[in-house]
Amino acid sequence: MSTPNRQLVLHSRPKGLLAPGDLQRKEVSVPELKDGQALAGVKYLSIDPTMRVWMAVDSYLPAVAIGEVMRAFGFAEITESRHPDYNKGDRVTGPTGLQDYVVLDASTSRSFQRVPKIPFVSDTVFLGVLGINGLTAFFGMEIAKPKKGETLVVSAAAGATGSIVGQIGKIHGCRVVGIAGSDEKCNWITKDLGFDAAINYKQPDWKAKLAAAVPKGIDIDFENVGGEIMETIFGLMNLHGRVALCGLISGYTKGNPAMASLGTVLVKRLRVEGFIVLDYASRFTEAATQLGQWKMFGRIKDRETIVEGLEKAPDAINMLFTGGNIGKLIVKV
Amino acid sequence: MSTPNRQLVLHSRPKGLLAPGDLQRKEVSVPELKDGQALAGVKYLSIDPTMRVWMAVDSYLPAVAIGEVMRAFGFAEITESRHPDYNKGDRVTGPTGLQDYVVLDASTSRSFQRVPKIPFVSDTVFLGVLGINGLTAFFGMEIAKPKKGETLVVSAAAGATGSIVGQIGKIHGCRVVGIAGSDEKCNWITKDLGFDAAINYKQPDWKAKLAAAVPKGIDIDFENVGGEIMETIFGLMNLHGRVALCGLISGYTKGNPAMASLGTVLVKRLRVEGFIVLDYASRFTEAATQLGQWKMFGRIKDRETIVEGLEKAPDAINMLFTGGNIGKLIVKV
Repeated sequence: MSTPNRQLVLHSRPKGLLAPGDLQRKEVSVPELKDGQALAGVKYLSIDPTMRVWMAVDSYLPAVAIGEVMRAFGFAEITESRHPDYNKGDRVTGPTGLQDYVVLDASTSRSFQRVPKIPFVSDTVFLGVLGINGLTAFFGMEIAKPKKGETLVVSAAAGATGSIVGQIGKIHGCRVVGIAGSDEKCNWITKDLGFDAAINYKQPDWKAKLAAAVPKGIDIDFENVGGEIMETIFGLMNLHGRVALCGLISGYTKGNPAMASLGTVLVKRLRVEGFIVLDYASRFTEAATQLGQWKMFGRIKDRETIVEGLEKAPDAINMLFTGGNIGKLIVKV
Repeated sequence: MSTPNRQLVLHSRPKGLLAPGDLQRKEVSVPELKDGQALAGVKYLSIDPTMRVWMAVDSYLPAVAIGEVMRAFGFAEITESRHPDYNKGDRVTGPTGLQDYVVLDASTSRSFQRVPKIPFVSDTVFLGVLGINGLTAFFGMEIAKPKKGETLVVSAAAGATGSIVGQIGKIHGCRVVGIAGSDEKCNWITKDLGFDAAINYKQPDWKAKLAAAVPKGIDIDFENVGGEIMETIFGLMNLHGRVALCGLISGYTKGNPAMASLGTVLVKRLRVEGFIVLDYASRFTEAATQLGQWKMFGRIKDRETIVEGLEKAPDAINMLFTGGNIGKLIVKV
């Protein structure tokens, strides 16, 4: 009797937000394990803006092929093993894909990381603060080279990455201003996370408020959004400011590329540096150790938006672009 | 009997190329020198693309005010001195402005550098290889961090700065490809200066030729031009490539800012860094010493386009944007 494995496969490349049917449900059987293989049951899926890019175009990774299981990072537990390195009950994070089960073998298991069970800490922390978002914030802030007393602005500030970026900024002694899309988000990052100010960019006077919130100008832009928000930040940057270019989500669901005037970059002698966290794989342990310590001592706090059910993953992806989540967005399979 | 001083003053801010009358001729008398002042006769004027920016907008320096003598770097010789640091015959470079004479006093003389008389070397070298262009190339290449075997592309490659950039690239062991606007310019940089290849962007198939000239992709873009040329270079950049953003002359005579897609910067993890040579003033001596040595040993060659007569300065400025000059453009007063 075979075990069913529900999968969401890419059926068509989305234009704008995901439409019903861009990801289609498919049910296959979990294959009989061979020697050297382990079966992992996916418990949680990390829902990230970059997934929208993977659905559409070749980028730092090839686009997901039509008919393939949609790529996603997830948290999984080994349910059965004929792999020498895994026992039943072992826990891993890695590119599980949007499905119930994933088979680990000699070739795929290298992309997975074993994670420990930590008392009083939710398993999902390995997808957020100790996962892709924490690592992205950590290495992006390394590029930004924050100095005490400088002003850091982060966009998508109530998102999984932005919220950590701001808290790392505070640890470094920066004045931290977040830009987010609702008063609830702004309240969270100022009252709970300790940001010095937050700007709701859906208010008509947000540009004036941002200018008022950075009386000494902006030294660091941790850029997640692009478009008009980035342009407004660039206008307030100080000479020799740094832009850690992490994402451009305002462009992901639109046809237009994220354009910027390099005239500002030149005249203000800015350094704009794009980065992809996967390039830092050899230093993940170092970063996760630091992030774990900050988390343990309460210097980094997090919050999750949990969506229940694999079949809700497409809606969850759209939430990232419509402002529906606060903090880390997770699908509980 | 007073000595006349011809000046070109800014009368109106140009739209596009300089129009007749944007700079207007004025004749004043050289003032009687007071104690602490010296009078310098301007011999040569350096004609640079940045002058077009100074005429139009506040940038890294305030725009030249209407009615003011047009800002320009020049080479001058002291003709009369009541200044303790200068004697008649001393030679200086600095912001002389477009005029016959400039008065140095306690406040202005700090912006001037004294330069020596070197046998067999033209005085104008202090405006080019040992002046603003050599220094710009030197510090821009420091930002670019060239490594042996990497591929460097430089735009405006037959200009005063670009031609030096490419030669510094060769000194560092790079494959160097220049982009210029005529076959004559392309021949000069390959045959005389040792560039590995040159692309005439006025030929219809230049993009394919550029791609063919960089079989290993582009590691460094020394960007002088912006616009379509920059966009084409960005498309050929390697992962982790560096862009030393020196100028955007394609935009200076047009209304449009120099737009670029930061999507490419993100996906390719590029570092784009704007710089202005004046920030490096404290290191000019160090750089000029190195540049002088390279020049002396023939590792950096130069060429000049000399325009005779102060009144021709406006036409000379326009030549920069219409491709009229090869190498350093100088007005002989």
